[in-house]
Amino acid sequence: MCSPPSKDWDQFFSENPAPANFKVSEEKLLNFITSNQAMPLCLVTSGGTTVPLEVNTVRFVDNFSAGTRGSASAEYFLQNGFAVIFLHREKSLEPFSRHFSPRELLSAMDVVEGGGISVGNTDLAKQLRPVVENAKKYQNNLCQISFTSLSDYLWLLRSASQQLGNTAQNSCLLFLAAAVSDFYIPARQLPEHKIQSSVGPPVVQLQLVPKMLKPLVSLWASNCFVVSFKLETDPEILISKSRSALETYGHNLVIGNILSTRKRKVILVTKERSEEIVMDDEEVKSGLEIEEKIVKKIAEIFKKL
Amino acid sequence: MCSPPSKDWDQFFSENPAPANFKVSEEKLLNFITSNQAMPLCLVTSGGTTVPLEVNTVRFVDNFSAGTRGSASAEYFLQNGFAVIFLHREKSLEPFSRHFSPRELLSAMDVVEGGGISVGNTDLAKQLRPVVENAKKYQNNLCQISFTSLSDYLWLLRSASQQLGNTAQNSCLLFLAAAVSDFYIPARQLPEHKIQSSVGPPVVQLQLVPKMLKPLVSLWASNCFVVSFKLETDPEILISKSRSALETYGHNLVIGNILSTRKRKVILVTKERSEEIVMDDEEVKSGLEIEEKIVKKIAEIFKKL
Repeated sequence: MCSPPSKDWDQFFSENPAPANFKVSEEKLLNFITSNQAMPLCLVTSGGTTVPLEVNTVRFVDNFSAGTRGSASAEYFLQNGFAVIFLHREKSLEPFSRHFSPRELLSAMDVVEGGGISVGNTDLAKQLRPVVENAKKYQNNLCQISFTSLSDYLWLLRSASQQLGNTAQNSCLLFLAAAVSDFYIPARQLPEHKIQSSVGPPVVQLQLVPKMLKPLVSLWASNCFVVSFKLETDPEILISKSRSALETYGHNLVIGNILSTRKRKVILVTKERSEEIVMDDEEVKSGLEIEEKIVKKIAEIFKKL
Repeated sequence: MCSPPSKDWDQFFSENPAPANFKVSEEKLLNFITSNQAMPLCLVTSGGTTVPLEVNTVRFVDNFSAGTRGSASAEYFLQNGFAVIFLHREKSLEPFSRHFSPRELLSAMDVVEGGGISVGNTDLAKQLRPVVENAKKYQNNLCQISFTSLSDYLWLLRSASQQLGNTAQNSCLLFLAAAVSDFYIPARQLPEHKIQSSVGPPVVQLQLVPKMLKPLVSLWASNCFVVSFKLETDPEILISKSRSALETYGHNLVIGNILSTRKRKVILVTKERSEEIVMDDEEVKSGLEIEEKIVKKIAEIFKKL
């Protein structure tokens, strides 16, 4: 396989149009960054991206991610004193509301005398309390921007990184937990309308997506502390693949994890060293989330800079 | 294109394994049907299906449907006196909870004295009231079963149709609003693990899905009243394509709709005649949903049988 031409990312943006509401999102980001200059700023990306198979999209290729790690991490960054831009897949899990399904909330509600609504189920009310309180407490420190397609994600990622790279602050934190597709179909190759079943089954030819971490680290947000993720199934190659990513892109830290154990163990890899974060049985049983430990550690490293 | 061999549906089920929790779902269906024999029974299918590209699915082809029509229709069938089996895509819209996002619900909640939770926002509380009341009122007449993949959907559809086809009742209603993929990759052709980007972009060869409406109408639920949907972009061919579906599958009614106007106009097509259901500006403004009119009409036709 030959390597793609240089500046393939520029070509990507020239060939794939910006999302419909891009200007609004850019302004929202700018306002949020401006009004949170007093705090350390953090971008958390979360959820999977889609690759449309038609311009008027009915069908698309998706890569699955519920947004568990991203939404939990965003919550813990808020609790660690960060202002958080949460760039997430539409309908994936979000900070705070992730703890409850809409059906669960609705079925716990009662109409009370006078026509008000309250949560009658006392167990659920007890669980809801800290969530409701935290959602209110941090509402001005959280900026939620959503995407669906790979192309929309990359446009918004570039914009957010560039704006964070340009802040008066010495450095912002980029925590890239989204599950981004490796493959796509360039906009010019997409059929305009829904693929008809009457013409027989289609063959879908995908192409490699340019590695955006390269321009992100070297051009868009060169003064930011950048954390990426690496998910593998083979523990033997995890550290070497994480180091090789650090060398290729020049960023600060890779959080390596193995698919089957990712909720109990991760490894933080920098150019110099690696450090495991592990949950013991007691911690798992008590409902502690590994993201709480990860974010605490990352925040420590970041604040020492 | 040559037509597929006969009984291609049997081949589909022999080649694609049942969903993991299939026995539990079958029992849930049986219990629900048994305990709701006194009411007319209705199956509503809703949302899009996925087609996995890997056995340990990270990537899949999806066809987009939020589940708006299905979830709204399920609500109106309940209000028209039906017991409803709601077979829906996991995380798509559901009856009642569809009216609110989790984020919206959470941000409207307050922790009150004594530690309880109430909805302080009076506008939202007013909107929530009938929804909370109806969700409670109909909770024993609603059976929710969820799917994600095309294969899971078809296994559950067959099971639900066969069970409804076997009830003591003369006839049940099947309202097939799900957006089902026309294409898939047979299980035996799926790679076991995540497709690696290092080996280059994959070519995805899809196959046609057998038309399950045929065995559903002629074998599984031959005594049921079956309603299917047809979505087109060209109004000229809508009625002829709907009639041709009725001739091919032998079911009772097609609800034809045009992509751009589907929330304001549909056409009910039977072998004998066709009838438009249209929303005027006043009705749209007042927040009336076209599904309320559709379901009322279908319930009238069904109850006359």
